[in-house]
Amino acid sequence: MQSLIKQYVLNRLGGGVADVPLDALDDAAVIDGIVLKSDSYTVKPIFFPGGDIGSLAVCGTVNDICMIGGTPVALAEGFILEEGLSISDFDKILVSMRSTCDKAGVSVVTGDTKVMERGALEKIVINSSGIGRRNTSLDHNLGVVRKYRNLGSQWLLDSNVRKGDKLILSGTIGDHGISVLSARKGYGFETRVESDAAPLNQLTNDLLQIGGVVAMKDPTRGGLANLLNEWSEKSHVGILLNEQEIPIKEGVRSACEMLGLDVMEVGNEGKVVVSVVPEKAEEVLGAMQQRPEGRDAAIVGEATLEFDVVAMETVVGGRRIIPPPAGDPVPRIC
Amino acid sequence: MQSLIKQYVLNRLGGGVADVPLDALDDAAVIDGIVLKSDSYTVKPIFFPGGDIGSLAVCGTVNDICMIGGTPVALAEGFILEEGLSISDFDKILVSMRSTCDKAGVSVVTGDTKVMERGALEKIVINSSGIGRRNTSLDHNLGVVRKYRNLGSQWLLDSNVRKGDKLILSGTIGDHGISVLSARKGYGFETRVESDAAPLNQLTNDLLQIGGVVAMKDPTRGGLANLLNEWSEKSHVGILLNEQEIPIKEGVRSACEMLGLDVMEVGNEGKVVVSVVPEKAEEVLGAMQQRPEGRDAAIVGEATLEFDVVAMETVVGGRRIIPPPAGDPVPRIC
Repeated sequence: MQSLIKQYVLNRLGGGVADVPLDALDDAAVIDGIVLKSDSYTVKPIFFPGGDIGSLAVCGTVNDICMIGGTPVALAEGFILEEGLSISDFDKILVSMRSTCDKAGVSVVTGDTKVMERGALEKIVINSSGIGRRNTSLDHNLGVVRKYRNLGSQWLLDSNVRKGDKLILSGTIGDHGISVLSARKGYGFETRVESDAAPLNQLTNDLLQIGGVVAMKDPTRGGLANLLNEWSEKSHVGILLNEQEIPIKEGVRSACEMLGLDVMEVGNEGKVVVSVVPEKAEEVLGAMQQRPEGRDAAIVGEATLEFDVVAMETVVGGRRIIPPPAGDPVPRIC
Repeated sequence: MQSLIKQYVLNRLGGGVADVPLDALDDAAVIDGIVLKSDSYTVKPIFFPGGDIGSLAVCGTVNDICMIGGTPVALAEGFILEEGLSISDFDKILVSMRSTCDKAGVSVVTGDTKVMERGALEKIVINSSGIGRRNTSLDHNLGVVRKYRNLGSQWLLDSNVRKGDKLILSGTIGDHGISVLSARKGYGFETRVESDAAPLNQLTNDLLQIGGVVAMKDPTRGGLANLLNEWSEKSHVGILLNEQEIPIKEGVRSACEMLGLDVMEVGNEGKVVVSVVPEKAEEVLGAMQQRPEGRDAAIVGEATLEFDVVAMETVVGGRRIIPPPAGDPVPRIC
């Protein structure tokens, strides 16, 4: 369904002129040097361990602006509330948004609230849009890349990954999706896993100051499997992962086993994968590990031209292909 | 409810630094010279005479960017679809968005689609966010204003209206709200009234080229009554309207009588009220009437310090106060 919709939307609304247009289907768009991002949040339930729909809405948009090489400047928040939502729940969400904004150093400058009658909606939907400027370290970063190889693009695009690039993952995967699932009724499992939802602008800033980064992307919907397949497809490269290096919390691993989920497809909200020229990989990794959001960072794979899919060297030996997620394995997690 | 929510949102998310911040509660925000607007559309039904949720989403955001003195540059469209929405309806909405974008000369550069399970939503909600640049004629326009009086603001704000300003309305009121109501089941009335939903950027552009405009606002939710009360409150002026001059279509007038609605409170999506220094009022009116969207334009009132409310000189003689709409007289029209 998602891909069908994408096709229809692109068909009708695509073709516009921009530095990074709709048709690129990248994390955000760039027009006239302004980074623009819009995302709607429909997570269910709206409160979960480690976060809520409000912190998610702020992090998601802030992070996508960073991923393309922007610095978030301001947010616009659109609330659609169901009449049944309690004012105290709404206020709790607002408080959480504010504290996440403060962490990220952005402010909400405009917004809109619509109320729908009871039963028309599930409690609350938030649309979070944001604008950003070009990160002041982006030119330095691209300059470092160009010491080692050509790169036409002025932004950090999904299509920038090249053979030999090292892929660095900033921490454990699956935490967000599992924390949301654990808060749903009827799943009957308990976990101490908390959502990783966090703004990543300070982390990405540090990496650009070092330089050598060609692409960044956050493994949200569809998890690492979706992210890497998008890179592989848009950059025309294969990707080889090393399973042993991918950090996964024990609680997440066991929850995935119990629920029959592939952790590679479970969404995250405070993680990033960075594609770096090999000459700068260790240095970028080091910078990432300096920050709390990147404490568990690891080099998890590299781009290759040996094949054109995403493959993983498994712990038990042998390789398995990681296909793009067929559907949404965990719907409504963001 | 709306005002309660506003209070909570401002309380928690307000206080940010911007040229025109959230706290101004103006049509759009301005930060770093970039105009930013976000609005969600939940109109019911999604198709109505003269438009649909798609044309509405584009017009609403484009127009709000214009109202503050911006030129729309790009849009971000967030779709929340219910599983039950047919692809052909969705495609019809996309086609309508595209044609409205083409009329307005803007493109959609990014977006997002979320699907919610059947029953979680009523078919489709669209969030439309947009960015704009400062209109290139805005400085000229403000220069003309300053020939006649002081004006501190660099943008066209709700708080700019001053004693003696003439208020020009660009055309008939109530068309949009009545067209949406006529498409709802159970109201049992027929009308040929079509929604006025239209992008206003070319019209507002023409007015700024003449100059003398201090504020512009589109009478959407809560209609003319809401617009004028917002101006009165934020500008600390009274407003005196002349009922005889307010253009209303016969079909709208009779539908309002039948339904017990005050046409002053019914929403519009292709109209603007402009506050102009009196010396330039006739010239601005003339320019408005040159364009199809402003064909029926009229000077409908003026700002005064005689009193501090919105009052109307009625057709039968005497004055009546136009209070701010108590609730939403026609919910879900945008």
